[in-house]
Amino acid sequence: MIDPVDLTARLVRCPSITPEEGGALVLLQDLLEEAGFSCTRVDRGETSNLFARWGDKGHARTFGYNGHTDVVPLGDVNEWTKPPFGAEIEDGWLYGRGATDMKSGVAAFVAAAVEFVRDTPPEGALILAITGDEEGPATDGTVALLDWMAAQGEAMTYCLVGEPTSAADMGDMMKIGRRGSISAFFTVTGTQGHVAYPHKALNPMPALVTLMDRLSRHELDQGNAHFDPSTLAVTTIDTGNTATNVIPAETRGTVNIRFNDTHTSASLTDWLQSEADKVAAEFGVSVAMTTRVSGESFLTPPGPLTDLVARAVQRETNRVPVMSTGGGTSDARFVMRHCPVVEFGLVGHRMHAVDERVRVEQINQLKGIYTSILHDYFSG
Amino acid sequence: MIDPVDLTARLVRCPSITPEEGGALVLLQDLLEEAGFSCTRVDRGETSNLFARWGDKGHARTFGYNGHTDVVPLGDVNEWTKPPFGAEIEDGWLYGRGATDMKSGVAAFVAAAVEFVRDTPPEGALILAITGDEEGPATDGTVALLDWMAAQGEAMTYCLVGEPTSAADMGDMMKIGRRGSISAFFTVTGTQGHVAYPHKALNPMPALVTLMDRLSRHELDQGNAHFDPSTLAVTTIDTGNTATNVIPAETRGTVNIRFNDTHTSASLTDWLQSEADKVAAEFGVSVAMTTRVSGESFLTPPGPLTDLVARAVQRETNRVPVMSTGGGTSDARFVMRHCPVVEFGLVGHRMHAVDERVRVEQINQLKGIYTSILHDYFSG
Ligand SMILES: [Zn+2]
Ligand SMILES: [Zn+2]
Repeated sequence: MIDPVDLTARLVRCPSITPEEGGALVLLQDLLEEAGFSCTRVDRGETSNLFARWGDKGHARTFGYNGHTDVVPLGDVNEWTKPPFGAEIEDGWLYGRGATDMKSGVAAFVAAAVEFVRDTPPEGALILAITGDEEGPATDGTVALLDWMAAQGEAMTYCLVGEPTSAADMGDMMKIGRRGSISAFFTVTGTQGHVAYPHKALNPMPALVTLMDRLSRHELDQGNAHFDPSTLAVTTIDTGNTATNVIPAETRGTVNIRFNDTHTSASLTDWLQSEADKVAAEFGVSVAMTTRVSGESFLTPPGPLTDLVARAVQRETNRVPVMSTGGGTSDARFVMRHCPVVEFGLVGHRMHAVDERVRVEQINQLKGIYTSILHDYFSG
Repeated sequence: MIDPVDLTARLVRCPSITPEEGGALVLLQDLLEEAGFSCTRVDRGETSNLFARWGDKGHARTFGYNGHTDVVPLGDVNEWTKPPFGAEIEDGWLYGRGATDMKSGVAAFVAAAVEFVRDTPPEGALILAITGDEEGPATDGTVALLDWMAAQGEAMTYCLVGEPTSAADMGDMMKIGRRGSISAFFTVTGTQGHVAYPHKALNPMPALVTLMDRLSRHELDQGNAHFDPSTLAVTTIDTGNTATNVIPAETRGTVNIRFNDTHTSASLTDWLQSEADKVAAEFGVSVAMTTRVSGESFLTPPGPLTDLVARAVQRETNRVPVMSTGGGTSDARFVMRHCPVVEFGLVGHRMHAVDERVRVEQINQLKGIYTSILHDYFSG
């Protein structure tokens, strides 16, 4: 019997700031191997990852949990009122970096999984995929685990990512998708000159502000049943021209788009390029564009997996979780390429801030929900 | 008898990079005192200036010449094919920093003035106001001379600034005014936030690009008989936000306006402020604006002074000089507060660049024109 609160505390005491493993994965591997899971460390680059399976490889009924034990840096250590790796409990709160994001989530699904396979060994398999690179570049974490799994013939039927998703109260929200994210970097080049002789120069600034203005005013969509409208933010414009009597040769601007499933990074790249080309033609300047895609939008439409989670949540909390697609990106954006995925977890308090903390009773509730999901899934 | 080519050469050999006097004003003072001019050094701050008068103080018929002996830095010394302070003559060109801008102009009017007062002492007075701070901040040069003159009761009826104004051929252009220059610095402040939660932030970028776009597209005027249209250039926008997932709190933009006499810096400041206020109201951001005025526009309308110069130019070159108000600022913007002023000089070759040089025969022609102006003026 693993106490999920105690396991959260032990994980918080591992100083696993990305990319440090900090002892967290070693601790989990010991526990899981003891419980009959076959474990493999799938490290890549500087990142440590842990793959654990109970049951037969490639079983058609394989439920997966995904989470991370790496945490963001501490910020100003002096502003913490509790030791950031101390896991002290006070007034029902457990304090520490990673307390909500997301060592409690990992502890809850590990405790649930270990207890479940011991008490009611299912017909099927469980996979726990735990990464140490969710808060970093995220290139050698879940992606490395999924690459390795594909190479090994390991597969999940469904996956639940245990990130904190509840908003105000435990169980009030799950995430069934996320908007995608693309950044576009524009460089507009004209011809430098003196402001007194503008006809001898070609100022790139009017072209850039026109482009940024048009992109900023464009309505990408109005949202749909599952998604808020896509949004575009001009995040920076930089020229670096300190001389007020000089027309600069070049200026740069960046936009970031958070887009729903009415777009793809490819369709947005086409649109951005056409707007850039239009402005280049209108102003006679050259407009170069590069893009960086952080993730496509994805959606696990309401269906068996969302029903499974919603039922378990309702059973344990009496709340029907809203199916949200809001917020930033998470590793679910990688898992979605592999199998249907939803995210569900407790309420995040002071995530990434000082005095990060978690309600102790929510850790126990979360373990209950994760256990209930497993019972439901394997008895279904 | 002063040979203006020789005097140009001697001045070029004085290394008078702003604010260094370099021996240039000392040399001129010696010459002018010998010729009967009463001279005063009017130094202010780091700057050396020379005031010289022949004839009675405060005479109603006082013709002034204004010029500068300071020069801009050499740039890359290794790129010069001749010693920059060598005043070497080759194929009819005299080489050196300041050869055209404007030691030749100063040499020409000094030679003309000395010869004129010796050979045909006029009924009236001549003033030569020579500064060492035209290429620098210009705060302690002509301005200091004019301040000092006002305090001393010294006055000019007309003034000619001997800057190079000819375009392609000697005598083809004079300057009868200049556009003014004002820079406006905008800081737009919103609320920082994460791009995934734009409703919790207030992005200052759309407000700034809208403001810059509107200013840039606005037609200030269509020009008039003496002036080209006023122009506005967005010279820089800077934000310094390196995170593509962050909406910045603040962004800054700068515009520079070169304006003709249908505007003043005050009327433009009012207009810019109203545009800033409009955008602030539309976007709910705060928009702060500061301005820096480099000079008001000014015009010496065609009349006795321009006729005087045009007649002399035509007599010596057979060309009718175009009356232009184009180009950058010069010290004429200060003199205009004092008396009618025009600028006339030879063709500038490679001003401010390496291998600056002047046609030797143009120095002699210029001395002829300046002499002719004096004859005409005092016999008129
Ligand atoms: Zn997380
Ligand atoms: Zn000059």
